[in-house]
Amino acid sequence: MKIVFIGSGNVATHLAKALHETGNQIVQVYSRSLENARALAESVSAEFTDNIQKTSPSADMYIFSVKDDVLPELLSQMPPTTGVWVHTAGSVPMNILAPYTQNYGAMYPLQTFSKKRALDLSQTPFFIEGNSEKTNSLLEKTAKEISTNVRFLSSEKRRYVHLAAVFACNFSNHMYALASEIVEKENIPFDVLLPLINETSAKLSEMSPKEAQTGPAIRFDEKVMTKQLQLIKDNDTQEIYKTISKSIHKHTT
Amino acid sequence: MKIVFIGSGNVATHLAKALHETGNQIVQVYSRSLENARALAESVSAEFTDNIQKTSPSADMYIFSVKDDVLPELLSQMPPTTGVWVHTAGSVPMNILAPYTQNYGAMYPLQTFSKKRALDLSQTPFFIEGNSEKTNSLLEKTAKEISTNVRFLSSEKRRYVHLAAVFACNFSNHMYALASEIVEKENIPFDVLLPLINETSAKLSEMSPKEAQTGPAIRFDEKVMTKQLQLIKDNDTQEIYKTISKSIHKHTT
Repeated sequence: MKIVFIGSGNVATHLAKALHETGNQIVQVYSRSLENARALAESVSAEFTDNIQKTSPSADMYIFSVKDDVLPELLSQMPPTTGVWVHTAGSVPMNILAPYTQNYGAMYPLQTFSKKRALDLSQTPFFIEGNSEKTNSLLEKTAKEISTNVRFLSSEKRRYVHLAAVFACNFSNHMYALASEIVEKENIPFDVLLPLINETSAKLSEMSPKEAQTGPAIRFDEKVMTKQLQLIKDNDTQEIYKTISKSIHKHTT
Repeated sequence: MKIVFIGSGNVATHLAKALHETGNQIVQVYSRSLENARALAESVSAEFTDNIQKTSPSADMYIFSVKDDVLPELLSQMPPTTGVWVHTAGSVPMNILAPYTQNYGAMYPLQTFSKKRALDLSQTPFFIEGNSEKTNSLLEKTAKEISTNVRFLSSEKRRYVHLAAVFACNFSNHMYALASEIVEKENIPFDVLLPLINETSAKLSEMSPKEAQTGPAIRFDEKVMTKQLQLIKDNDTQEIYKTISKSIHKHTT
């Protein structure tokens, strides 16, 4: 299959490489940054452009993987094509593509992608949705080339999966970031926290997060909580400590 | 070595089992709940009691592993002993033990313990501190029997390690709990989030949490953030979303 990527960020990079490796032809990469377009294009033997109007019109699939904010403008500037248009956004309804083309859908990989970290996508859940039987089949076939974990999901429900991902990934990662600041300020290497972090996620293969919870907030150990709040100098971080402790306690009772 | 455990919670249970397995004799377990004392005692071939004043006076080590709130009262009720007294609390200074005995210290395992999940402690960091050379040696020897990751740390600094652990473990786990509520409300199984959660922690072996961050808050994708806030019905969870997103953004710039 001939595929064009609109976007060259973390998601585009990982998807393009995976689809290239499974034998698809990435014909072109568009990015508003020519440098980023070139970097991704070179790794998947594709052409590249920073002019959306020069998007190749003859590919089988166009994968839009850009910030939600810029998607509408890009869509309005796309030349007409015959291929299927697909976006990879969790919180954007499939129908945003309807005014511009005939066959369209969404393919949302539930994962955290960083360009510099290699990733085996085979276990990553892909949530797909197409506007017709034909598009559904094509999306299913494509997603199954790179993942064993593919399911259909409506735009309506995909938003909630995306919201859950923000909590499970971005927000938990920010907790790691705040923890790293706390120990590093005391000249203790962040590494000491890794066995704890790994066990915290590993526990979830055996029990629910609610069952897995430990620590002062779930014990409602007020003495510890009061003392810990006093150690936090930053107001926003204090606020996070209070808000989350309160929520943990609320979920216990 | 003959060891008495004061407490039968998650930490006491894992430590007692590990020390029993490495050839120490757990002579007695105290808990205010006789049932809990018995359960732990039986698994490590120990005596048990719910009367702190009947604590065996002739052990080599007394490990206090109880909620911080109840520690002072228990200490004041302990009979005199010749052995070393050690507590396992992150946020309690070692000197809390000074009025009661001659040789004392702290041994804090940086880990999340649940009774129902088995755990290999060998990679778990132990932060130890004693009031004398002799106590330091004994604590180091004991901790090294169950872990390869043992280091000395002052009470002052241990508080910060504990605070960091609350963020890295308890708070990140609560993010998983909120994520699980969000998907389960939509009849999507929590399991779909596991590859994402595992990758989020696995990334930290290659990069710092700050480098690893992805998602709408770090991109400052206001469109997504506004839409996601509207999906959250619970006020406290909304507050968490706003506070953490703001903090992520602040840490980027």
